Amino acid sequence: MVKAAVIGGAGYAGAELVRLIARHPEFELIAVTSDADAGNPIADTYPALLGVEPACFTPHDDPAVLDCDVAFLAVPHTAGMHHAARLVAAGVTVVDLSADFRLPQDVYEAAYNVEHTAADLLEGAAYGQPELNHAALDALAAKHAEGEPVVVGCAGCYPTAVSLAAVPAVRAGLVSGTVIADCISGISGAGKKPTYKTHYCSANEDAQAYGLPLHRHAPEMDMELEMAWSQGENEGAAPKILFTPHLAPLARGMVATLHLPVTTEDVDWQKLYEDAYAGNPFVHVLPAGKSPRTSSVAGTNNAHIGVFPNRGNGYVTVISTIDNLGKGAAAQAIQCANIIFGFDETAGLEGMARAL
Amino acid sequence: MVKAAVIGGAGYAGAELVRLIARHPEFELIAVTSDADAGNPIADTYPALLGVEPACFTPHDDPAVLDCDVAFLAVPHTAGMHHAARLVAAGVTVVDLSADFRLPQDVYEAAYNVEHTAADLLEGAAYGQPELNHAALDALAAKHAEGEPVVVGCAGCYPTAVSLAAVPAVRAGLVSGTVIADCISGISGAGKKPTYKTHYCSANEDAQAYGLPLHRHAPEMDMELEMAWSQGENEGAAPKILFTPHLAPLARGMVATLHLPVTTEDVDWQKLYEDAYAGNPFVHVLPAGKSPRTSSVAGTNNAHIGVFPNRGNGYVTVISTIDNLGKGAAAQAIQCANIIFGFDETAGLEGMARAL
Amino acid sequence: MVKAAVIGGAGYAGAELVRLIARHPEFELIAVTSDADAGNPIADTYPALLGVEPACFTPHDDPAVLDCDVAFLAVPHTAGMHHAARLVAAGVTVVDLSADFRLPQDVYEAAYNVEHTAADLLEGAAYGQPELNHAALDALAAKHAEGEPVVVGCAGCYPTAVSLAAVPAVRAGLVSGTVIADCISGISGAGKKPTYKTHYCSANEDAQAYGLPLHRHAPEMDMELEMAWSQGENEGAAPKILFTPHLAPLARGMVATLHLPVTTEDVDWQKLYEDAYAGNPFVHVLPAGKSPRTSSVAGTNNAHIGVFPNRGNGYVTVISTIDNLGKGAAAQAIQCANIIFGFDETAGLEGMARAL
Amino acid sequence: MVKAAVIGGAGYAGAELVRLIARHPEFELIAVTSDADAGNPIADTYPALLGVEPACFTPHDDPAVLDCDVAFLAVPHTAGMHHAARLVAAGVTVVDLSADFRLPQDVYEAAYNVEHTAADLLEGAAYGQPELNHAALDALAAKHAEGEPVVVGCAGCYPTAVSLAAVPAVRAGLVSGTVIADCISGISGAGKKPTYKTHYCSANEDAQAYGLPLHRHAPEMDMELEMAWSQGENEGAAPKILFTPHLAPLARGMVATLHLPVTTEDVDWQKLYEDAYAGNPFVHVLPAGKSPRTSSVAGTNNAHIGVFPNRGNGYVTVISTIDNLGKGAAAQAIQCANIIFGFDETAGLEGMARAL
Repeated sequence: MVKAAVIGGAGYAGAELVRLIARHPEFELIAVTSDADAGNPIADTYPALLGVEPACFTPHDDPAVLDCDVAFLAVPHTAGMHHAARLVAAGVTVVDLSADFRLPQDVYEAAYNVEHTAADLLEGAAYGQPELNHAALDALAAKHAEGEPVVVGCAGCYPTAVSLAAVPAVRAGLVSGTVIADCISGISGAGKKPTYKTHYCSANEDAQAYGLPLHRHAPEMDMELEMAWSQGENEGAAPKILFTPHLAPLARGMVATLHLPVTTEDVDWQKLYEDAYAGNPFVHVLPAGKSPRTSSVAGTNNAHIGVFPNRGNGYVTVISTIDNLGKGAAAQAIQCANIIFGFDETAGLEGMARAL
Repeated sequence: MVKAAVIGGAGYAGAELVRLIARHPEFELIAVTSDADAGNPIADTYPALLGVEPACFTPHDDPAVLDCDVAFLAVPHTAGMHHAARLVAAGVTVVDLSADFRLPQDVYEAAYNVEHTAADLLEGAAYGQPELNHAALDALAAKHAEGEPVVVGCAGCYPTAVSLAAVPAVRAGLVSGTVIADCISGISGAGKKPTYKTHYCSANEDAQAYGLPLHRHAPEMDMELEMAWSQGENEGAAPKILFTPHLAPLARGMVATLHLPVTTEDVDWQKLYEDAYAGNPFVHVLPAGKSPRTSSVAGTNNAHIGVFPNRGNGYVTVISTIDNLGKGAAAQAIQCANIIFGFDETAGLEGMARAL
Repeated sequence: MVKAAVIGGAGYAGAELVRLIARHPEFELIAVTSDADAGNPIADTYPALLGVEPACFTPHDDPAVLDCDVAFLAVPHTAGMHHAARLVAAGVTVVDLSADFRLPQDVYEAAYNVEHTAADLLEGAAYGQPELNHAALDALAAKHAEGEPVVVGCAGCYPTAVSLAAVPAVRAGLVSGTVIADCISGISGAGKKPTYKTHYCSANEDAQAYGLPLHRHAPEMDMELEMAWSQGENEGAAPKILFTPHLAPLARGMVATLHLPVTTEDVDWQKLYEDAYAGNPFVHVLPAGKSPRTSSVAGTNNAHIGVFPNRGNGYVTVISTIDNLGKGAAAQAIQCANIIFGFDETAGLEGMARAL
Repeated sequence: MVKAAVIGGAGYAGAELVRLIARHPEFELIAVTSDADAGNPIADTYPALLGVEPACFTPHDDPAVLDCDVAFLAVPHTAGMHHAARLVAAGVTVVDLSADFRLPQDVYEAAYNVEHTAADLLEGAAYGQPELNHAALDALAAKHAEGEPVVVGCAGCYPTAVSLAAVPAVRAGLVSGTVIADCISGISGAGKKPTYKTHYCSANEDAQAYGLPLHRHAPEMDMELEMAWSQGENEGAAPKILFTPHLAPLARGMVATLHLPVTTEDVDWQKLYEDAYAGNPFVHVLPAGKSPRTSSVAGTNNAHIGVFPNRGNGYVTVISTIDNLGKGAAAQAIQCANIIFGFDETAGLEGMARAL
């Protein structure tokens, strides 16, 4: 068994990592750290995780972590690069769920207004969105197979949902102009910290847009579209995203509704998307006319995609749904780790969503 | 007191009409009809309405209705024109919440694939969205003051939310091209009929787009934009709407997020909207930077609007929230009736939303 | 107009007081205080209250409060007696929603483990549960009519729901032994403070008992049963309550399910309850066989009661539903104030619950 | 692999069976039947189950079912005995989730007011609540090992939750008199059929008791207490249950709050329950003072139990939570099947609940 640690296990993505790793056939959970909750039973915070081993949170500097083969970092930005630096130095491979290894250094420093303190690691890191960037993850897996610790910077939840809906059309060079991306997220996207916004009585029976005019996730989406654009060997500028997130009263789940201004309508869009994801164990293009639902992917690494041509005025609408804590965070991190360690990509991720 | 009837009182819009009329200072509730529930206590269906008078549903052909001054029709399309014809013939003014008196005859017949059987009434009817069409409602009020029964075709819920967000910019001629309108509705928008879609276990913890590629409400929105465009004495074609509705797990509430492709960014958009709705008792433009919430308008005739310039790429985003059963249905119908009968436009509509 | 202040207007009960007073025909809202939010627009915290006057929170020591005729205290326990002392000294009548004026001094000090610093006021205060204690409130109204400021200690939410279900049978001397009271509260009962427990993602899709073995509200319930018992001129010990509260994922609402061990089953229980509440504008005994719902009373001062004899083994089950922020807090406080000021008891409390 | 069919796979319990069997290490899903949905993709009804094999519903008389080793019946009462008879005749072992094989014939016929048409099968069937009745299930497993098809009548959801909380104290002879059982169920307990009661807008923001005065599940609970009472070799009459179910707005989950009138308080209740469930892989007695939550067991076969002595007046309160579709239906059925087929009792049931 490969020894795994979760750094920052008291947050929502951390708890989902614990749940998934505890039942993973190849990973053995060695440590779950939280400085704030160190010493406390994990089941005190999350009684759903009663019986998990180890039973208690330990501090971030738990020496057991340094003995692990892989550490999943479910920490805020800037904490990601801090832990990555000390862990890689100890030979531990890092799968980071923070924003610290997603973006080019200059883009990161501008978006987060902070200096990147692990630029060398960032250079060697791979962007962890397998459907967009599998080749780079495979290359990292090869490096890792030679005994070198590596770093994956897992994609954010909104960028994952958006890229899954956008990439096939953008890679094919069929999109020109501004892609409108109106997204809906469940409340867990705001994190575990109790605030007025996340109070049940505030979030319940409410829907709203937020984060306008510009959300911190926008540069990552533009980077994704550029990656897809250049993968397709297209010329000129890649399309840009106009991103507007909304909150709705559900715990988990994300809808990305993308309106793509297309250069031609004379394309079999359904087939384009089906071909793009053929054989992918997690991304399912629904039959023509079906709209994806968040409840269908909750708790999983799955994405459901609906393709709607004929919207009029030169637009094609593509809609994806994911679980923001699953394919948008913990489950995708495990998918990335499976690739790095050479396991079956679906290992530990076979669970289906509940029908209700 | 003006005698009022609710035709189709067993549905959600009907129940909201009953709640509002029962406490209206000028209207007296005479009859609440439902063929399916005739004879049953209203409080059996809606225990919240315990104590309301009359206590029981009567059939649609209840003769008491013919004695009323006004009838609110909360019935499906085609039933609206049927009841309107027989009621106007009896001298009863009609405020119709169905789709039957909203659209020009040809547009209606194409959208609903049915013949309009009351074309003469349709010709004389006014579109019931006061912020867009107050002059026509005033003209109808004058006709009514002369003793003539009149017909108002109240705006739909999505069109109301969309037009409130679009009209000031469109009327000013500042919008060119396709307006993207991504909207979120609470589950009551699907009506009271129990279906798999409206089952708690299906709707709960789910968000999804629906009604694609084309929703029946789209022609009404295009009509609204044309009205606003011509009110501004603009030339050329009015902008068109690309409308995509979504469901989220709330009972009541609607968000309309509009991305307006603008012809210039050199406009004080906040001021444009504030001026457009200055003095309006129901439509509130929030301070710059604030995003409206559905919970803030639930149970009321209010609309909250947030204006977000600087979205990049030539777009201005305007977001409105309403209660789909309030400003989107029953409360707006009462606002229209207040205008027709010459009452204070806010009569019976003063209630504030609950803070939670 | 009678000048009214809300002390502690930033919490949930405070916000509900503001909503109700702003539309009350006899009270004029002069000040809404919050030390933490002083200077901020009320609509920043509660956009539903946009347009209310005054528009901003002021600090607790706002001199305008001392000019008021009545102050509603929506503050934590111990803060209630502090503000009551200074306000009564300034001639302001106090309607306190904290626990400070509900219990006899010794019971209070034992339950809250704190000294009561306004024992003289407590002595003269009346327990604010009109259905149980109308005579004492009438007596206070007489005192107030002579120009003396008075203090009402409004009943708690759980005690209100429990007493409405228990009092008629207990007063009639038909109950002997331990009354089981299993109650369900919406999340607003836990207050506005964001905590892990009130986080949407924790409260959603969860139900649980809490506060065991003994909840702070229990002594107040025992006091109520003793009041009812002695009102009926019964001998021996009054029955006691075994109280167990539960949380369910709704914002507002409370169910009290009481199992009464009865001394005889040979009673027309339905009639007993109907007679007890005959003419009461707020408490409605449902037709035999109907079970009350929280949604039917949300946002109101109403209580719905269902009476179920024939449960077997000598038990009668009586179930009441209220809105914990309405009849359980803000609305009942206004009912008490209406009595004290000699207004119609229903003034400002006429609104019906929404049917959904 | 053991061949398994789900009869009645379109309902909620059926869908949960499909989800669990599809990932079970020992069962292979051969057929999922529904007369109403025959021929339709399962994923049309439940997109969460996209990718499951077989992909489509077949009719109940699908011959493939007769080739199976085991059939799980997720059908209404009376349909259970019908299918059991024809399947056992074909040599198929039956795990029935309907009420048809839970009760003695006379009790069944009285409770459901219908003749039992498979009395011989009922005689040989075992009541499927392993924590209460493991010996009988083991005996059935021995019979099955000899090649004989057998029938398990799985316990109902409320009875499972109630018995887990009651049995240790009742078996020990420490309870005398009426056990009050106030329970809360999620909306899925009302089944998949869309009704006014299960409409999102009706169930949302509502809590209520229902099914009074007497619920059909009560006789099953009394039977359970009698089984436990006699297992403890106690004399006299077993205690009886006074059962009151409530609905709360969650999809899945059940709380059973039991107030046990105990014959002595001089017992280590916590230890009594811990010992009773020691080694049980599914039933977890929480540390003293902790109250169980429904969210902690959703989607699993787990039960969480909290024990609260010192409630006063001779009562001990014991609270259990289960998932009504998990331990209360589909997962417990699989646990029973695991026992019958000699598999590890936890096979296919290892998944932990989501922390949110």
